[in-house]
Amino acid sequence: MSTNRKIEDLLNDFASGHLAKEDVIKRLRESLYAELEHTKLDIDRQARNGQAEVIFGENKSAQQIVEIIRSMQEQNIPVLATRIAADKAELVLSEMPGLHYCSTSETLSLQEDLSIYERAMAGNVVIVTAGTSDLKVAMEARKTLQVMGHKTTLISDVGVAGIHRLVPRLGDIQKADVAIVIAGMEGALASVVGGIVDVPIIAVPTSVGYGANFGGLSALLGMLTSCAGGITVVNIDNGFGAASAAIRIVNKLKTK
Amino acid sequence: MSTNRKIEDLLNDFASGHLAKEDVIKRLRESLYAELEHTKLDIDRQARNGQAEVIFGENKSAQQIVEIIRSMQEQNIPVLATRIAADKAELVLSEMPGLHYCSTSETLSLQEDLSIYERAMAGNVVIVTAGTSDLKVAMEARKTLQVMGHKTTLISDVGVAGIHRLVPRLGDIQKADVAIVIAGMEGALASVVGGIVDVPIIAVPTSVGYGANFGGLSALLGMLTSCAGGITVVNIDNGFGAASAAIRIVNKLKTK
Amino acid sequence: MSTNRKIEDLLNDFASGHLAKEDVIKRLRESLYAELEHTKLDIDRQARNGQAEVIFGENKSAQQIVEIIRSMQEQNIPVLATRIAADKAELVLSEMPGLHYCSTSETLSLQEDLSIYERAMAGNVVIVTAGTSDLKVAMEARKTLQVMGHKTTLISDVGVAGIHRLVPRLGDIQKADVAIVIAGMEGALASVVGGIVDVPIIAVPTSVGYGANFGGLSALLGMLTSCAGGITVVNIDNGFGAASAAIRIVNKLKTK
Amino acid sequence: MSTNRKIEDLLNDFASGHLAKEDVIKRLRESLYAELEHTKLDIDRQARNGQAEVIFGENKSAQQIVEIIRSMQEQNIPVLATRIAADKAELVLSEMPGLHYCSTSETLSLQEDLSIYERAMAGNVVIVTAGTSDLKVAMEARKTLQVMGHKTTLISDVGVAGIHRLVPRLGDIQKADVAIVIAGMEGALASVVGGIVDVPIIAVPTSVGYGANFGGLSALLGMLTSCAGGITVVNIDNGFGAASAAIRIVNKLKTK
Amino acid sequence: MSTNRKIEDLLNDFASGHLAKEDVIKRLRESLYAELEHTKLDIDRQARNGQAEVIFGENKSAQQIVEIIRSMQEQNIPVLATRIAADKAELVLSEMPGLHYCSTSETLSLQEDLSIYERAMAGNVVIVTAGTSDLKVAMEARKTLQVMGHKTTLISDVGVAGIHRLVPRLGDIQKADVAIVIAGMEGALASVVGGIVDVPIIAVPTSVGYGANFGGLSALLGMLTSCAGGITVVNIDNGFGAASAAIRIVNKLKTK
Amino acid sequence: MSTNRKIEDLLNDFASGHLAKEDVIKRLRESLYAELEHTKLDIDRQARNGQAEVIFGENKSAQQIVEIIRSMQEQNIPVLATRIAADKAELVLSEMPGLHYCSTSETLSLQEDLSIYERAMAGNVVIVTAGTSDLKVAMEARKTLQVMGHKTTLISDVGVAGIHRLVPRLGDIQKADVAIVIAGMEGALASVVGGIVDVPIIAVPTSVGYGANFGGLSALLGMLTSCAGGITVVNIDNGFGAASAAIRIVNKLKTK
Amino acid sequence: MSTNRKIEDLLNDFASGHLAKEDVIKRLRESLYAELEHTKLDIDRQARNGQAEVIFGENKSAQQIVEIIRSMQEQNIPVLATRIAADKAELVLSEMPGLHYCSTSETLSLQEDLSIYERAMAGNVVIVTAGTSDLKVAMEARKTLQVMGHKTTLISDVGVAGIHRLVPRLGDIQKADVAIVIAGMEGALASVVGGIVDVPIIAVPTSVGYGANFGGLSALLGMLTSCAGGITVVNIDNGFGAASAAIRIVNKLKTK
Amino acid sequence: MSTNRKIEDLLNDFASGHLAKEDVIKRLRESLYAELEHTKLDIDRQARNGQAEVIFGENKSAQQIVEIIRSMQEQNIPVLATRIAADKAELVLSEMPGLHYCSTSETLSLQEDLSIYERAMAGNVVIVTAGTSDLKVAMEARKTLQVMGHKTTLISDVGVAGIHRLVPRLGDIQKADVAIVIAGMEGALASVVGGIVDVPIIAVPTSVGYGANFGGLSALLGMLTSCAGGITVVNIDNGFGAASAAIRIVNKLKTK
Repeated sequence: MSTNRKIEDLLNDFASGHLAKEDVIKRLRESLYAELEHTKLDIDRQARNGQAEVIFGENKSAQQIVEIIRSMQEQNIPVLATRIAADKAELVLSEMPGLHYCSTSETLSLQEDLSIYERAMAGNVVIVTAGTSDLKVAMEARKTLQVMGHKTTLISDVGVAGIHRLVPRLGDIQKADVAIVIAGMEGALASVVGGIVDVPIIAVPTSVGYGANFGGLSALLGMLTSCAGGITVVNIDNGFGAASAAIRIVNKLKTK
Repeated sequence: MSTNRKIEDLLNDFASGHLAKEDVIKRLRESLYAELEHTKLDIDRQARNGQAEVIFGENKSAQQIVEIIRSMQEQNIPVLATRIAADKAELVLSEMPGLHYCSTSETLSLQEDLSIYERAMAGNVVIVTAGTSDLKVAMEARKTLQVMGHKTTLISDVGVAGIHRLVPRLGDIQKADVAIVIAGMEGALASVVGGIVDVPIIAVPTSVGYGANFGGLSALLGMLTSCAGGITVVNIDNGFGAASAAIRIVNKLKTK
Repeated sequence: MSTNRKIEDLLNDFASGHLAKEDVIKRLRESLYAELEHTKLDIDRQARNGQAEVIFGENKSAQQIVEIIRSMQEQNIPVLATRIAADKAELVLSEMPGLHYCSTSETLSLQEDLSIYERAMAGNVVIVTAGTSDLKVAMEARKTLQVMGHKTTLISDVGVAGIHRLVPRLGDIQKADVAIVIAGMEGALASVVGGIVDVPIIAVPTSVGYGANFGGLSALLGMLTSCAGGITVVNIDNGFGAASAAIRIVNKLKTK
Repeated sequence: MSTNRKIEDLLNDFASGHLAKEDVIKRLRESLYAELEHTKLDIDRQARNGQAEVIFGENKSAQQIVEIIRSMQEQNIPVLATRIAADKAELVLSEMPGLHYCSTSETLSLQEDLSIYERAMAGNVVIVTAGTSDLKVAMEARKTLQVMGHKTTLISDVGVAGIHRLVPRLGDIQKADVAIVIAGMEGALASVVGGIVDVPIIAVPTSVGYGANFGGLSALLGMLTSCAGGITVVNIDNGFGAASAAIRIVNKLKTK
Repeated sequence: MSTNRKIEDLLNDFASGHLAKEDVIKRLRESLYAELEHTKLDIDRQARNGQAEVIFGENKSAQQIVEIIRSMQEQNIPVLATRIAADKAELVLSEMPGLHYCSTSETLSLQEDLSIYERAMAGNVVIVTAGTSDLKVAMEARKTLQVMGHKTTLISDVGVAGIHRLVPRLGDIQKADVAIVIAGMEGALASVVGGIVDVPIIAVPTSVGYGANFGGLSALLGMLTSCAGGITVVNIDNGFGAASAAIRIVNKLKTK
Repeated sequence: MSTNRKIEDLLNDFASGHLAKEDVIKRLRESLYAELEHTKLDIDRQARNGQAEVIFGENKSAQQIVEIIRSMQEQNIPVLATRIAADKAELVLSEMPGLHYCSTSETLSLQEDLSIYERAMAGNVVIVTAGTSDLKVAMEARKTLQVMGHKTTLISDVGVAGIHRLVPRLGDIQKADVAIVIAGMEGALASVVGGIVDVPIIAVPTSVGYGANFGGLSALLGMLTSCAGGITVVNIDNGFGAASAAIRIVNKLKTK
Repeated sequence: MSTNRKIEDLLNDFASGHLAKEDVIKRLRESLYAELEHTKLDIDRQARNGQAEVIFGENKSAQQIVEIIRSMQEQNIPVLATRIAADKAELVLSEMPGLHYCSTSETLSLQEDLSIYERAMAGNVVIVTAGTSDLKVAMEARKTLQVMGHKTTLISDVGVAGIHRLVPRLGDIQKADVAIVIAGMEGALASVVGGIVDVPIIAVPTSVGYGANFGGLSALLGMLTSCAGGITVVNIDNGFGAASAAIRIVNKLKTK
Repeated sequence: MSTNRKIEDLLNDFASGHLAKEDVIKRLRESLYAELEHTKLDIDRQARNGQAEVIFGENKSAQQIVEIIRSMQEQNIPVLATRIAADKAELVLSEMPGLHYCSTSETLSLQEDLSIYERAMAGNVVIVTAGTSDLKVAMEARKTLQVMGHKTTLISDVGVAGIHRLVPRLGDIQKADVAIVIAGMEGALASVVGGIVDVPIIAVPTSVGYGANFGGLSALLGMLTSCAGGITVVNIDNGFGAASAAIRIVNKLKTK
């Protein structure tokens, strides 16, 4: 029921004598705050269509994760829990043996293959990685996109140290709705892809490397200062964040 | 003429005896390299529809800028030159008095009001700034978008120090294709906007501030680590880069 | 006995012949240094009214902690030991099974509920956190305040990613003597709260986050460069320090 | 007129038939948004009692500053403009020769001596500096406090290189409502003062120094990691910010 | 005369009675230190074959530079002075109008075209730049190589934002003795070139860029963490250093 | 078969009617892409002569390493796996007990003494270390060079704290094709060696040290800003990278 | 008169009835604080023997400097003013034409040659620089030492790029009371000198260099992490600080 | 036998026909290099008087440490091994149960009380710490000094948070030959001590603290930028380095 409708009802009740003035005022104020809350919810709903909840597991105990997953299962919501280290996963699985653990992306889910959640109006997001060590981040992004109902294509190990491996895949990238480009070390792959294709590009620096990569700083700075125009960047190793940014774009595309 | 078609013609000429085998081979190889170059151009074209050239003025002399603008005028391309300091602008204007200089965005253009370039299929990009000191960056983004043919809405001075000023504008932001959020100091505006609306968000940290803002680093780190999901970031003060990233998204929307 | 009084006594003893001149001089010098020490103690006393001792446990062994707590118990001083990792706590508890360990704040105390120490002239400090992961720091601050006799209100998980959750709590914050605002990642919550309410605000950056948060640096810089006026900052994760700063303010309020 | 009262009137008008239902709903919604705005204003008012407006001059042109000052003069608001470099001040003074420029604090005001604004309920803020080079920051803080109606005491040049100069002033500091401690280089003065007195302390690191002070970073880190408990810190060189934080505390004290 | 020969002569003089024992010992010790000095000179000579002296002009006055150049002219040594800002160059040219100033590389030399110094046994160094703004560094490297007698090839503006421009030049790079790769911003060009060709690569990060490039740090870190194997790096903007490193390699090649 | 030859065959087949026009076009395009790939391979081959594959073990599981080594053994390729921590090595050795583990360099290989792979045309690379703690990096470089077929000389523990130990080894360094200089702490050894000998120098900063060495940053900056001319630098602790860079140089020397 | 003596006199006056008890107490307290101040002065005196005052000119106006120098002249104190930029010096000299300005060290003094102040008990401090660009810092240290009455020896331009120039001077360094070693870039000279001689060494990093020297940070870190034992470091470019530290040592030597 | 004497003997043998000219030349050259080595040793000897060897244990295995200690015992050299973690110490002690392990300083020695090594000509070094957590570094310095034969006085826990504890110890500090001042967090103790006493001061920043102390960086920067003149600094946590620097000074004092 809309706020307008509620106010109208109150006025009617007031006019008909069913409600005293004080009660009308009190209820009007209540609906005022409810509307604020609703505005938020209305804005949210658009994004939420078909969205599963993603559980950020890093600071949660195994027990907390079990409880959240159980409650989601009861509501028939597709489950994805990220940042679950192997030992924590083991604890969760001992209580919920039906779950699937992906040790590459360090995620837990109800199904092994999340592409089953794919929706008709789904976006098509291509995920490109420089090296195999970037797969952890890539898979976190991929599973987040899948559980939200989107199609993904993974193109891995096409870093600029062997640029000829990238060339045959450029057509696929150009056709995507959004490209997530994941690279550690100097992060040059984002510049190279961005210099050739013109789709929206979300670059993810990874902490892969050693020495002067300073935990991903080298790739982060490299992507921010990219000589290729219009590349955007998310936080180091933030596969989930890249997926979220891609979903913002794809949702716009699909609701047009 | 496509490469396929060129090759077919060559084969026909060869079959008909109009061309010797050596010539066919030489011309086939030429078309091979041309195709590579064309692939690049073909991919580019999509983005280029209706696009003007933007001149990055920072490392160019006044004389170089005059020459580039003149050559663009001859080809009837809408002109925008960015990063033109006031004294350099004066030198350019002494030779080309018909140009318009915007001292806020430090840009030169043929027209004062670039919204005349607006195209039918244009995107709708909202540009939000935290403070009036962020206007330089906002106007660089806005003029870049305009000269490329896109619609822009500027919502300025709604930083989180006075969050109540932001509330009435949230509806406008939610309706946009893309929101560019520009803020210096701690850059919190991006988190607040990102926490409420779900459109694609490109955050631009600015070097506005002093002391521990370290030339924009505080806003940059703040935006990268934003607690709001799916926010993407471009380089410090990079209004042009944000516009370019927005155009990548808008072009996808409009060609769907 | 005041220094003045002591000197007077000495003079009387000297006048009455009970003390030789050399002894008078010697004792006068002794009281001189004692006064210096006393000045310090006098200044301290004000703050100490009703204050318990807080043990910083990080660099102390379990055995050292046990000894300090025992000696405090004998003097009937309320006990709080902070920065006690779970394994160290276990060692302490094996010797002093009556203690209570709070695994969230990593503190040890004599009582589970420290609000029993609340004094009549206590201050009212509100503690606001952006996310549940900031609870460790918040609880360290809360328990420090409680053991010192102050009232606290905890408002958690109202970070700017969901600003609508914060709105209904603003009235409570505005009524407090001091607000401690705790946030990791970009630390934007301090700016938002500081932009709306005008109570003294002590912002605590936390090391919560990953990638470009660099161990809390992003939140620290964000809070220092906050666009909201008059926000003060303490060290990263320093819940105890924030409580101490709050107590300085509250003590001023209550002794007026 | 309160929102409640407005709603009551509307209901009465509706009951009496003076207003149609549609109009009542429309006006109810209007008052809803107005209330949000008013809540903000109500919260603000408390802090605003007796407060002048302070103009941050750094990014404003001389002409803009002249206009703001003129409009404030018309409303009889005490004027203070900070961060006015000498050459900009000269431009302003050529148009408004009656203003006073303080070259130490780089501020403009209507009166040379701002203590004339002192109010009866004013706070008593002591400002302590390590060296004479910190005076610029100290005077920015002092003039901000004065124009807001507060009493200030300036104790300068008592840095730890000559700690004996500080000792005789400790009594004055202990008596203040708040102490603002300003120091560059290693910023040790804050620790020393904080270790002796127990008033609320706001430490301001300054960019005074050279070499490894890195624009104030050495003092900033020194103050954040101070071994003295309960010291709070504002941004480098931020005299205005320190004054604002002091006012938050003093206002609490005076309204108790 | 070798040290051995000198010692032999001394022994002969001693044997023949021409020299007293004390004098022999004194002269033997003198030759001992001379040999140390000579060892250094002998090792140096190899590198010095055909080398001109390069004057680092940054910290020298115009007058000092004039004097050094005059003394070099008298000894018929080819002259190159680097890091000569335009105004300093003007002062030098007013006294030595015959010199040539290159405003791109900010160098002074006796000849405009330094390729006249090319030697028969010269190396062949290719210099690749990402953008036209890197030309200053490239030309400093080129002129240093030329004045030392080496051949250079300049391939400019082939940055990864337009990788297709690089492809046709890869053959030339592969044929060189050494490739100096110069790039600012994210410095990705070094990785791309290093991933394709296998010649020795000296990467030079430049301070070209803005925002998060932090004066060349982004390119420096990018090149150090390059995913392409065996790339070496010199200091930011250090064209002279890159040329010196190239000469070390080329000299080895040519003396084999 | 060259691309030219392939095209000629296709034309002949087309002329003779063995191939339809569509098939000719299709196959021509295929050879176009194949040529791109071949260009890459041709360029690679030069470097690959006699080269073994080096496995970067850091992000690979023991099982993955076993599989790669087995497949290399079948092809008779000399094996070297780097960055194998002791516990991972144990797992590998339990399956392949014939391998040799070097705990200093943390490498696995088929033979204990890799100098057996030395080739006739091998280069002569001298590896110089400042301290014994730099041996890990030195041995990684040495084994990489050996398995590629090159001669190495190790001169260790000649850091500048005892410069007299270095002097007698300068002759050996000067005679080498390339010198790899490895040092932690302040990295001064590279400057000293570079100031005396003129061979190509590849400096490797190591993370040896503590406190303000910041994980190798002190040595890295020291080597980049070396006052000795023409020193090049690779990433911190990157013994493999230094060896790769040396091989680029040596291969040029040997193929001249 | 000693405090003891003063107290005795007071007691006598009290005993004889010349002073009332209240006055005795008041005067006793006064002498208490006076003693604190005196203790400081007594400790200072030792260092002050023969010391001139050094004026830090950086933050002082020309007029302030003139006044301080005039007052020092009247008291016959040798004058040295440091950090006087050329234009400020010109202003001072226009009022006090008898002063001498040293443009290398940027100092003002009464005499050109400050060695005239040399005292009989003076220390012997050797100042060693890596390059001629370090002379500014070296001369600031030298003049500070000279005006304080100490002997200095300057050994310049013996940086490690040409270590053979250093060898013949090692004997002189070893004989000194203290060695101040000044170097920019990687600062390796301190390690080399410290590795050979065993006198007290004060290392001064300078901001000489460019690129990754980051304003002297490279030399600072290099000196702090020096592999040579027992080297101490002062702030970047701090010639005065190095001289002050040397004087602390020399004063100990001479008063033994 | 001096080099001069050796040369003389050779000449005599040559003169008397006992040695052929070739042999004389060969032996003369040998003594030339020996002299270089001897010069080093001669210079070293001065510092070595009474010095024990200190073993840096961090990168050495328990077995290596056992072997070094055994060889030192055989030569009757006092033993001190630093940076021995508890578990490594246990391994060493299982083989050499007679050793003493100090868990505070993490050192191993032959005797529990190293003051037995004290020499008649020993220096008197006072070691001052800010807090009890700095004891590890202080004890490393103390034991190094003791094993070298010097007297030490330890004044601990007098940090500036309680400056009144420091005052009574200032006399002892002033009387010392050298003061080593050790502090973490903001490191202010060095400034306070340096502002009062005038003995040589060696400041040691420690990594004690958390948050924005960044592993000791806050204390390091604080000490380098100290407002007290003539303070020198060594690396973070470097107790051994401070002792070595103190010994350089003390040796000068004692050999005067």
